[in-house]
Amino acid sequence: MTQRDETSQAILLRDDRQGVTTLTLNRPQQFNALSEAMLEALQMQLDLLAKDDSVRCVVLAASGRAFCAGHDLREMRATPEIGYYQDLFRRCSRVMQSLQALPVPVIARVHGIATAAGCQLVGSCDLAVASHAARFAVSGINVGLFCATPSVALTRNVPLKRAFEMLVTGKFIDAQTASDWGLVNQAVEEDELDAAVAALAAQIVAKSPAAIRHGKAMVYRQKQMGLADAYDYAADVMARNIMEDDAMEGISAFLEKRPPKWAPPV
Amino acid sequence: MTQRDETSQAILLRDDRQGVTTLTLNRPQQFNALSEAMLEALQMQLDLLAKDDSVRCVVLAASGRAFCAGHDLREMRATPEIGYYQDLFRRCSRVMQSLQALPVPVIARVHGIATAAGCQLVGSCDLAVASHAARFAVSGINVGLFCATPSVALTRNVPLKRAFEMLVTGKFIDAQTASDWGLVNQAVEEDELDAAVAALAAQIVAKSPAAIRHGKAMVYRQKQMGLADAYDYAADVMARNIMEDDAMEGISAFLEKRPPKWAPPV
Amino acid sequence: MTQRDETSQAILLRDDRQGVTTLTLNRPQQFNALSEAMLEALQMQLDLLAKDDSVRCVVLAASGRAFCAGHDLREMRATPEIGYYQDLFRRCSRVMQSLQALPVPVIARVHGIATAAGCQLVGSCDLAVASHAARFAVSGINVGLFCATPSVALTRNVPLKRAFEMLVTGKFIDAQTASDWGLVNQAVEEDELDAAVAALAAQIVAKSPAAIRHGKAMVYRQKQMGLADAYDYAADVMARNIMEDDAMEGISAFLEKRPPKWAPPV
Repeated sequence: MTQRDETSQAILLRDDRQGVTTLTLNRPQQFNALSEAMLEALQMQLDLLAKDDSVRCVVLAASGRAFCAGHDLREMRATPEIGYYQDLFRRCSRVMQSLQALPVPVIARVHGIATAAGCQLVGSCDLAVASHAARFAVSGINVGLFCATPSVALTRNVPLKRAFEMLVTGKFIDAQTASDWGLVNQAVEEDELDAAVAALAAQIVAKSPAAIRHGKAMVYRQKQMGLADAYDYAADVMARNIMEDDAMEGISAFLEKRPPKWAPPV
Repeated sequence: MTQRDETSQAILLRDDRQGVTTLTLNRPQQFNALSEAMLEALQMQLDLLAKDDSVRCVVLAASGRAFCAGHDLREMRATPEIGYYQDLFRRCSRVMQSLQALPVPVIARVHGIATAAGCQLVGSCDLAVASHAARFAVSGINVGLFCATPSVALTRNVPLKRAFEMLVTGKFIDAQTASDWGLVNQAVEEDELDAAVAALAAQIVAKSPAAIRHGKAMVYRQKQMGLADAYDYAADVMARNIMEDDAMEGISAFLEKRPPKWAPPV
Repeated sequence: MTQRDETSQAILLRDDRQGVTTLTLNRPQQFNALSEAMLEALQMQLDLLAKDDSVRCVVLAASGRAFCAGHDLREMRATPEIGYYQDLFRRCSRVMQSLQALPVPVIARVHGIATAAGCQLVGSCDLAVASHAARFAVSGINVGLFCATPSVALTRNVPLKRAFEMLVTGKFIDAQTASDWGLVNQAVEEDELDAAVAALAAQIVAKSPAAIRHGKAMVYRQKQMGLADAYDYAADVMARNIMEDDAMEGISAFLEKRPPKWAPPV
């Protein structure tokens, strides 16, 4: 059942299992830093996943002790040109937005430190489960580089003064604090991390694929609208959703007190 | 002192008492589902309340074991036409926006389950008090229908990852969690619910009616603006508020260490 | 090392020490109310600070038992003209926006009550540390004047239903609650307040001045943008930041496992 995509050259592993695709950052010696190659591999996989109707849920995981330490500082230092940096940060921002643009939910599985763009990855996923070994920081400020693009994701997850404090101090927060502040959904024991991620993914896979796909983009898009526009848009999405076979089946199953049978993804 | 509006045909009860109007959803056998008739009755009462200067605070309550289970699935299934659904969800969205558009605060009194559009009702009220018997879910996903319009209210109350998790899993949260996440203001013991709602309503009724009416719409409107526009607008609202007799009376009373005497609502 | 600006006539004290400028509201008998003279003194100092590259962090503190009780009601009552009030609230709003517009972080040091525009001051600072003796309210509603301009700051710090409840009830919340709700970063023992503020300021002063200045305005500006625009803007800010000497030095220091040496502010 497992498929490994060799074109991603082993710095990014892919595993497809019962509708759940797990992407694993695999540069453990470099704390899974987001090198150009890593960004390219991620973008390629996200582009593939966006078109793959067999995928129902994505898990973003990482190998080794860290989750992700952000950009690859050594590589970044080697080309000190503004055009290079603009392009690099735009490519990284595109990866982050592609996570949110995927039609299916993405769960971050955070087992170790997530710093700078690594913390941004967590913020950019729809859901996140962290083990108590995970710690989070937007620590660019410690090397003289304010975490500007990470702040985009952070301030959409965490209350404003909390985000500001993290950005100007570079301080670490633990998994429980990240959960209290809304950066992750759950903080669990290290040996319960896989089970917690699997349980969350299984809940999502058990739902109507059509309904999930109708909903995900809508949640983020309506949030940026005024209230009246948001309601007009959401009402229209919901009317289109209910015309799907799955909604009629789901409603009938509920009224008839039987489990629903969803149509397979097209 | 109690007035019951017979035109709302008993599916929606109305009680007016010392400036506090309580609307009670009254289809207990159907878990107070928002049928077309219920939406129409709610809209009619909200339209009346919007023009009634004797009303100082509204409480939204419900009969029976549930607070509100959302749309009436049986009725909804009976007319599988997109035009019908678009119209239905727009009418429901109008009710939700009418709660926020009322010139006086609305308190949800949540004693039991509040699911889908029922959870949205809670989110659409300005304030909410829940008993520990209440539970909350946006559970449309369980019947293949993503809670699109409820997400509009939910994501304006609850941190983003929390809202997303509720929307894709359909999971229930208890009253204390709803309070921790900002969906309700307080979670209280079951036998303290009426007292807690009454105490909150009494605090509001004790304030200057003019000041409350100046403020409520402003809170939501400025929130959708950029900072500079928000301040220009709020400064203007505040200048108009202070020109009211009540503000001059209130400031004088404060300086003279005596209780204020508010002008009766016009 | 201490400098006191006599032009601010002692109602606002200024102390400059190792990059940290402390402004102290100094009308203790009037609970540091924001009289016209106080607003003018604050605006003058904030305008000076905005142009002063030697300043690395600002602390906003207050003398006497209260932090700040908001507008000066006695003075405000004396000129009951709408044009006067419009101008007054605009000037006050300008002070609040100037705190956020400063290129360096501002920390509120809250040791006592902060009400109405005093609570708004706390909300308008980037960071806030409160002692357990502090209490917070937007209490204008108690004198018939809805805290309209304070609501702009409050609703950008605190979840919506929490903010609404404070605005229509005028209720006080304690320092721990203010921390739980995001209005302040920390609640500490009274005798630890100065140490906590100093520690936070010291962390900020230890960072690259250039990086902090690149970041602060960006955090707030991107928050008001849609996601794609926010990322385009933040990526550009970050590319310009990394072209600074400090970023190259910081990255090299990190890779070479030595402390960085920041360029002095220009």
